[in-house]
Amino acid sequence: MEQKMNRQTATWIWYPGDFEIRLHEKMSVVRRARGVMYPAYWRLDRCYSNIKFRYTYDLAKEEQIHITAEGRFSFYLDGKDNYRSADAVITLPAGRHVISVSVFNDVEAPALFIDGPTVRTDSSWEVTSYQNDWMQAGSWTFDTMEYPPSQFRLPTTPLEPATLTMRDGYPLLDFGRETFGYLQFHNVTGTGTVRVYYGESMAEALSPDECVTLDRFEALEATDNSENGIYTFKEAKAYRYVWIHADQGVGWERISMLYEYVPVTYRSSFQCSDPMMNKIYEMSLYTLHLNTREFFLDGIKRDRWVWSGDAYQAFLMNYYSFFDLDVTRRTLVALRGKDPLTMHINTILDYSLYWFISLYDYYLYTGDFEFIQQYYDRAVSLMDFCLKQRNEEGMVEGRPQDWVFVDWADFQNDGAVSTEQILLVRGLEAMSRFASLMGDEAAAGNYGDLAKETISKTLRIFWDEEKGGLLHHRVEGETKPTLTKHASMFAMTYGYLSQEQRDSVVRNVMLNPDVPKIRTPYMRFHELAVLCESGAHDLVRREILSYWGGMIELGATTFWEEYDPSLADDEHFGMYDVKFGKSLCHAWGAGPIYILGKYFLGVTPTSPGYETYRIAPNLGGLAHMKGTVPTGAGQVSVEMSLSTISVESTTGTGVLTFSSAESPVCNEGEVRDVGNGSYEVIIEAGNIYRVSYQPMK
Amino acid sequence: MEQKMNRQTATWIWYPGDFEIRLHEKMSVVRRARGVMYPAYWRLDRCYSNIKFRYTYDLAKEEQIHITAEGRFSFYLDGKDNYRSADAVITLPAGRHVISVSVFNDVEAPALFIDGPTVRTDSSWEVTSYQNDWMQAGSWTFDTMEYPPSQFRLPTTPLEPATLTMRDGYPLLDFGRETFGYLQFHNVTGTGTVRVYYGESMAEALSPDECVTLDRFEALEATDNSENGIYTFKEAKAYRYVWIHADQGVGWERISMLYEYVPVTYRSSFQCSDPMMNKIYEMSLYTLHLNTREFFLDGIKRDRWVWSGDAYQAFLMNYYSFFDLDVTRRTLVALRGKDPLTMHINTILDYSLYWFISLYDYYLYTGDFEFIQQYYDRAVSLMDFCLKQRNEEGMVEGRPQDWVFVDWADFQNDGAVSTEQILLVRGLEAMSRFASLMGDEAAAGNYGDLAKETISKTLRIFWDEEKGGLLHHRVEGETKPTLTKHASMFAMTYGYLSQEQRDSVVRNVMLNPDVPKIRTPYMRFHELAVLCESGAHDLVRREILSYWGGMIELGATTFWEEYDPSLADDEHFGMYDVKFGKSLCHAWGAGPIYILGKYFLGVTPTSPGYETYRIAPNLGGLAHMKGTVPTGAGQVSVEMSLSTISVESTTGTGVLTFSSAESPVCNEGEVRDVGNGSYEVIIEAGNIYRVSYQPMK
Repeated sequence: MEQKMNRQTATWIWYPGDFEIRLHEKMSVVRRARGVMYPAYWRLDRCYSNIKFRYTYDLAKEEQIHITAEGRFSFYLDGKDNYRSADAVITLPAGRHVISVSVFNDVEAPALFIDGPTVRTDSSWEVTSYQNDWMQAGSWTFDTMEYPPSQFRLPTTPLEPATLTMRDGYPLLDFGRETFGYLQFHNVTGTGTVRVYYGESMAEALSPDECVTLDRFEALEATDNSENGIYTFKEAKAYRYVWIHADQGVGWERISMLYEYVPVTYRSSFQCSDPMMNKIYEMSLYTLHLNTREFFLDGIKRDRWVWSGDAYQAFLMNYYSFFDLDVTRRTLVALRGKDPLTMHINTILDYSLYWFISLYDYYLYTGDFEFIQQYYDRAVSLMDFCLKQRNEEGMVEGRPQDWVFVDWADFQNDGAVSTEQILLVRGLEAMSRFASLMGDEAAAGNYGDLAKETISKTLRIFWDEEKGGLLHHRVEGETKPTLTKHASMFAMTYGYLSQEQRDSVVRNVMLNPDVPKIRTPYMRFHELAVLCESGAHDLVRREILSYWGGMIELGATTFWEEYDPSLADDEHFGMYDVKFGKSLCHAWGAGPIYILGKYFLGVTPTSPGYETYRIAPNLGGLAHMKGTVPTGAGQVSVEMSLSTISVESTTGTGVLTFSSAESPVCNEGEVRDVGNGSYEVIIEAGNIYRVSYQPMK
Repeated sequence: MEQKMNRQTATWIWYPGDFEIRLHEKMSVVRRARGVMYPAYWRLDRCYSNIKFRYTYDLAKEEQIHITAEGRFSFYLDGKDNYRSADAVITLPAGRHVISVSVFNDVEAPALFIDGPTVRTDSSWEVTSYQNDWMQAGSWTFDTMEYPPSQFRLPTTPLEPATLTMRDGYPLLDFGRETFGYLQFHNVTGTGTVRVYYGESMAEALSPDECVTLDRFEALEATDNSENGIYTFKEAKAYRYVWIHADQGVGWERISMLYEYVPVTYRSSFQCSDPMMNKIYEMSLYTLHLNTREFFLDGIKRDRWVWSGDAYQAFLMNYYSFFDLDVTRRTLVALRGKDPLTMHINTILDYSLYWFISLYDYYLYTGDFEFIQQYYDRAVSLMDFCLKQRNEEGMVEGRPQDWVFVDWADFQNDGAVSTEQILLVRGLEAMSRFASLMGDEAAAGNYGDLAKETISKTLRIFWDEEKGGLLHHRVEGETKPTLTKHASMFAMTYGYLSQEQRDSVVRNVMLNPDVPKIRTPYMRFHELAVLCESGAHDLVRREILSYWGGMIELGATTFWEEYDPSLADDEHFGMYDVKFGKSLCHAWGAGPIYILGKYFLGVTPTSPGYETYRIAPNLGGLAHMKGTVPTGAGQVSVEMSLSTISVESTTGTGVLTFSSAESPVCNEGEVRDVGNGSYEVIIEAGNIYRVSYQPMK
C-alpha cells in the first residue's frame, strides 16, 4: 500500500512566506515617536486571506482526524466542493482520496492543523492562493494545536534594575546596560497618572521633552490589568534608563521588566590578550542579540524596521555568532515580500541588490538549497525589476522615486553610481549560481554573461588610473571626478580587482587621508573587511580599538548607529536633527563579530554549508587569541599565540593557512609549503591540529 | 489668500478602490453550502494596510480640527515625521502648511475623517500606498464621523410571512415570493435546538437533507442575544420558504424576517397590452433588485459572488431600470482588483474581456469620464495581460490554467475561440476610446489598429460562407467545423458584420434549428438582443413569453439561472449535480428589462451620458405599450399604440425613429422621411411629441 512517510507530529501549515509577511506587517508598525505610531514608509505586503490546502492519502482503514484552523475552514473530499464540512472531527474513509481544505482569514495568515493517526499536516501538504500556484506548504515549529502561528511571541524573562536613584524627586532606574522589553510595576496603588521616560542614555531619560520613547498609564488601569499584582506594559521598548514621573496619589512596590529576546545560543567565542578587544567582542554579540528578533532589525529603539542593507551585515555577523537560521530566513522572506514590484526593497536601489547577495551568503554558509529553490521565482522577478532600470550604457540608475543610499555621507548619488554596479554584478553572479542549481543552465549562462559584461564595463568606465581607485558616479555619460572608498571596497571584497588594482586601492583610497572618511559602522564593516583582505590586520585591530573602544570609553553598553569622535558630550546622542535621534543599539554596530571571526580567527566557507572551508588565523598584533566559529551543525575552534596555532573542527574539511618565518611543525597533519612563507595544513573533522610556527617580522 | 474650494461637509476618505476591494473580500466568503463556508475560488485581493494622506492648506488664522481614523493614525506637519501626534483634536497653525497623516489598519481599509471650520477631508486630499502613487483619495457618502466605511451595511425592513402552514408537524413559512434577509424569532422560550431549512422552492425547504442553505440555533443562545424579545439571525439568506424543526421544549411567538436591500429607485417602467409581458417585466425588476447588493451578484442563494460576465449584463439591465451607479462602480472596481494579474477575472478569459466592455458601456450610459480616468491604468494593465495570451496567429487562447467559459453548453473551448476574439476586439475599441479621452492619441491609435487588424483576421478565419456564420474555434491552426450562435451574436451586436452577413446570421444561425439551442438566460440575453437588432421583435416577444412566461407558469417569483422546458417537476431545481443546486433568483434571468427598454421602448444613448440618444420604439406584436427609461439624471418616456407614438424627454437631444406605412404627422416637431418607410423626429428635452402613424403590414 502506498503511504506517505510516517511523520511523528502534526504541525501548523500555511501559504509559504505568509507567516513571515504577516509578522513583518505587524512588526513594521511598532515604532513609536514619543508615543505616536511611526509606520514603515514602504508598501507593507499582506498575506493572502483566501487559500486552499490539499493532500492525497491512501488508508487501509478509515481514521479519525482533528481539524483546527486559524480562520474559518471548510473541508471536502475528492473535489466534491458542494459537500463541505466545518466539523472539528472527521472520519476519513479508507482508500485513496484527496483532501481539500479552504481556509479564510482576513486578519492573521490562514493556517491549518490536522492531527490523526497517520494523516497529519506538514510540509508535504500543498497549498494554493487560487493562482494556479500549488506549492509546498510553509511550516516551522508550531507543532501543537494550542500554539498557532499568529500567537508567535518572543520569550521573556524577568530582569531587575541595577540601581534606583532619585533625580529631581523622581525615581530613575538604571538596568545597568541597554536592554529591551516590557516594564512591570508591582502592586500599584492609588489613583493618578504615571509617566515614563525611556533613555538609551541617561541624558535621554532625563529629558521628558526630548526622549524618543515614552509611556503613560493610569494607576487604576494598572490595578485593573494586573496579574498577581504585576502590571506589565503592552509595548516593549529599548532602554537602559527609565525615569518615572507619577502623580502624588500613586504608589507601587517596585519596578522591574520582562526582557524579551530570541533564545539564541552564543555559539562563537573570541578571547585574546587585549581586554578591550574582548570587551568589544562581547558587546558586539550583545548588540547583535538585541537586534536579532522577529527579524534582524536596524536598531531596537527607533526604526525597529527590517532594512535589507542592515540585514545583509547582520546575516554575516550571525554566521559568526548565533548561526540562527530562523531569523535569517524570516528576514529574507519578509524583505522580498510580494509582487508586484513597483518600489525597491525599503525603497532603496542598493537594498534590492543586497538581497541577492544575502541569499548567496545564506547558501554559502548553510548549503540549504531547499530554501533557495522555494524563493527562486521571487529572486528572478526581483532581478528582472532591477535590470529594467539600466540606462543606455547598461548601468543601473535610481529612478526619481528611488533612494540610492550607499552610505550616510556627503556625496551625490545621481546618475549611475559605481557601487550600485558592483552590487548588481554580485547579484547577477548569485542569480547565475541559483539558476544553475535549479538546473536552468541557459539562465545561469545569461546571468553569468551579464555579470561579466557589467563588471568589465564598470571597471572600464569608473577606474581612474591617476587616482588609483573607482570613481563614484557618472551623470549623463560623464564620469564625475569624485573619489570615494565605497565602490573600490566592494569591488575588492567581491574579487573584481587585479592584484595591482587591489594594492592601489589600499594605498591610494583606503589609506589616503584625502578620501572622505567613513563615519558609520555600516560602511566601516566593509572598510575593515577590505583592509583585512589585504593583510592590514594590525591596522584593523587598532581601528577597532579606537572606534569601538571609543564608544565604550564614552559609556556605551551596546554599539551605536554612528560614531564621530570629534563630537562632545550629549552631541553623540543626536541624529536626523533630533536631539536623541541616534540609535545606541544598532545591529550594524556589531561588525567586530564578523571581522574577528572571519579575519582574525580566519574561518570562511569555501563551498556551500562549510563542506570545505579555510582557516587563516591572523593575530594582527595581538599576543594570543582563542575562539570558536560555528559552521552549521558543527564548529571550528582556533587558538593562536606568537608561536603556536591550534585548530579543531567537528565537520567537513578545512585548509589551515598561515605564514611562518621558519618551517612550521605539525604532528597531526602534513604541512604544505605554498611559497612566500605561506603554509597549509589540511584539517579533517574530529582531530586537533597543533602547529608550531615563527611569526613573520 | 489662496484657499481650496469651500466644502460643505467632511467625508471619510481612503485609498481609491480599497473600500470596494475590502468589501468584496468580505462578501466573497458569505456563500454557505449547507452551513459551511464556500469561499470564492480566485485570489481575493486585499486593501493596503499602510497608507498616508496629504493635504496642503493656507489659513489666515489658526483653526482646530477633529481627527478620527479607521485604524491607528499619526499626524504631522510639513514633513516633520519625527514630530507626530495621535491627538483627536489638533490646532492647525495659520499660514501655508502640508498635513500628512499615516493610517494603518490590518483588518478594515484604513480611512480618515478630519473635520474643521475649513480644513476637512474630501476627495481633494491625496493618498499614497508608499509606492510613489499619490492619488486623489477615494470617498463616497460616509459623511459623518460615526458611520465609517467599515460599518457599511445595506438597509433592512421588516417583512412578515404570507402564510404559515404545518408540514409533517413542523411549521412551513411562505414569504409569498423569493426574498433575502435575516430571519427573526420573536420571544423564544424554553431550551433545545431549532433547525431551519431554507428553500427557494417549497420542495427545497421540505428537504432537510438536500436544501442548499440551512441554519440552527439554541433557544438559550436566542434568548441571550435578543433585542426587545427579537432574535435576529446573523447571516442573511435567500429564500421564499422556511421549514422550522424545533426541539419539543422550544417555543416562540412568531417568526418574521428583515428584508435586506439596496434602496434603489425603480426609475423605469413598462406596461403593455399583454398582462404576462407586464408580469415578466415586473418580475425581472424584482429579480435584478434582489441581485443588486453590495455588488451585482450572480445569484442570491448560491454563489453570492461577483462574476464579471454576469455583471456585464446586470450593468446593462441597471441602465434600463434603477440606473444605480454606486453598485455599478463598486462592482467594476472589485472585479478589477489589484495587481499582479496572474489569473483572469473570476479565472475566466471572457470575464476579463467583459470588464472592458462594461467600462465602455458605463461611459456611454453615464458620460462619467472621471471614473474612467481613475481606473485607466488598471484597464491598461489588464489589457496588457490579455494581449500576452495571443498565439502565433495573434488570437487570444486560454492558457491551461484559464477557464474559457462562453456559456454552459456542450462545446469545446480549446484553441482560439471566435467569441473570445470578438470580445477582445470590443475591449480594444473601448481602450482606444479611453486612451483618446486620456489624451494619449498614440495609444488610442495602437489599440484602434489592433482592434481593426484582429476583427478582420477573425472574420477571415472564422466566417464560413457555406454555413453562413462564424465557426466556434480553431485548434492548432485548424478551424473546426462546429457552428454555434455565440460569436455571430456578439459580432452582430458590436457591429462587425456587413448587412449581408447579418442577414445570413439571422437566417442560417439564429433561426436555424440545427444550431444548438441556447439554454441559459445568460446567452438568451444576447440572442434576443441580436434578433431585435435585426427587427425580429415579434419573434422576440413570443420567445420572452414562452421562456420567461414558462418559468412563471411553473410558479417562479424571480427568474432562474437556467430553464429547460423539457424537464419535469423538481428536476427544474437541480444543477451542478446537486438536487437543489440551481439558483432560482439569478441576475442574468432579468434580461427582459434590457430587451424591453432598449428594443421595445427603443431607447439607446448615441453619445456619452445620453447627450444624444435614439428612440426607436417597436411594438413587436403588442397592441400598445407605455414606459420610461432613465437617462442619467433625466428620463425618456415612450407610449405607443398601433396608431400613435408619444415621446417625452427631460434631457439632451434625441432622435425618434419609427416606420410608418403612410406619411406620419407630428404637430410638435418636424418629421423627416429617411426612406424605406422610416421616419425621424428630433426630440428636444421638455416637450411632448405626439406622432400619428400607420403600422407597416
